[in-house]
Amino acid sequence: MRGGGAVRGSVVLLSGGMDSATCLALAARRDPPVHALTVHYGQRHARELAAARALARRFEVASHAVVRLPIGPLLGSALTDRTRALPRGRRRTSIPPTYVPARNTLLLALALGVAETRRLRAIYLGVNQVDYSGYPDCRPPFLAAFDRLSRVATRVGVEEGWAPRVRAPLLRLSKAEIVRLGGTLGVPWELTWSCYEGGRRPCGLCDACRLRAKGFDEAGVPDPALSR
Amino acid sequence: MRGGGAVRGSVVLLSGGMDSATCLALAARRDPPVHALTVHYGQRHARELAAARALARRFEVASHAVVRLPIGPLLGSALTDRTRALPRGRRRTSIPPTYVPARNTLLLALALGVAETRRLRAIYLGVNQVDYSGYPDCRPPFLAAFDRLSRVATRVGVEEGWAPRVRAPLLRLSKAEIVRLGGTLGVPWELTWSCYEGGRRPCGLCDACRLRAKGFDEAGVPDPALSR
Repeated sequence: MRGGGAVRGSVVLLSGGMDSATCLALAARRDPPVHALTVHYGQRHARELAAARALARRFEVASHAVVRLPIGPLLGSALTDRTRALPRGRRRTSIPPTYVPARNTLLLALALGVAETRRLRAIYLGVNQVDYSGYPDCRPPFLAAFDRLSRVATRVGVEEGWAPRVRAPLLRLSKAEIVRLGGTLGVPWELTWSCYEGGRRPCGLCDACRLRAKGFDEAGVPDPALSR
Repeated sequence: MRGGGAVRGSVVLLSGGMDSATCLALAARRDPPVHALTVHYGQRHARELAAARALARRFEVASHAVVRLPIGPLLGSALTDRTRALPRGRRRTSIPPTYVPARNTLLLALALGVAETRRLRAIYLGVNQVDYSGYPDCRPPFLAAFDRLSRVATRVGVEEGWAPRVRAPLLRLSKAEIVRLGGTLGVPWELTWSCYEGGRRPCGLCDACRLRAKGFDEAGVPDPALSR
């Protein structure tokens, strides 16, 4: 813990997808210097790790930590359990099976520790209420509760009266709006990866691929990741 | 995620120290079946991991997960940074340097994921306000804020109206009171490990050793760990 000193900069939870890439671009503009934090928590493939690394390099972040949390076997989710089918276009009536119990709580806890250690004022998280409204930890009550927690969970909150704040700038945007925003910020879409599968090219069938395609379609922008 | 089904049992954050061992004994009595969760987050030594394993075996837990979170380099703390001196008997005027930013938030987030996955009603955490009053994340406001977070962070909180609750049964006990309570519960003190250093025997000089010795002294009980 570095005592005293200015409170500035941010940590960005960078998965390698289009949402976190857009967050990275926003943080670089609004809250520099930016520290990127990528957490591999047992997803099926490492393809998006490579995307996160490429994005961090492109945005010349102050630091990029890649943390492997071997928690997949502990938490029941189709995203971390290879024996379960991934959703493909089925209509959701409830929270999708890709929900990972307490995932964003865990990611934000880690980011909070980094932000307190480095005295960063903001934690950027690319959650999105429109496309993933099923996930409880992508909703405003969750984000507000985490900010309240941060103020009593940290030394700086208790002794200095400030705590890193969660920023979720994409919360109320559609995928098409994210494509347009990212365009104005110069997000290099060709470096991002969205597909739940880990092949050389996106599968085009999983929910993540479908959402991405819908976003680019509605924004009237070609997806450069598909023309590689 | 196992949908539906009874909500029962608990997860115990088991470090291998005397406090978490007492929590384990309490949980085994009050909230069985018990799942133990040991997190190695970059402390200086692995000695307490062995203690946690021995305790889990002794109490015949339903499961024991040992998770290595390689986060030490990310979080500035004397407990995870080998270049910094550990405190030895110096009077504290503030939060001690062994504070790990957001540590209990991170541990509880992981436990919350386990508890939601297994539909467990309680998370046992051996925090103690008396001996470690300097740590913000060992205080009642933190624990209450985490419970509020759990209700909005989880699928079960949002869809089923319940969430795992944090139990901190040692919060207001002195170390001597913990020694007496553990004695009535049959905690095998000889299996526990408290010392910040990782030798074959406790160093007797660090804050953790001093607190432990003071507790046994005041309770009028010999510490069997010292007679090994």
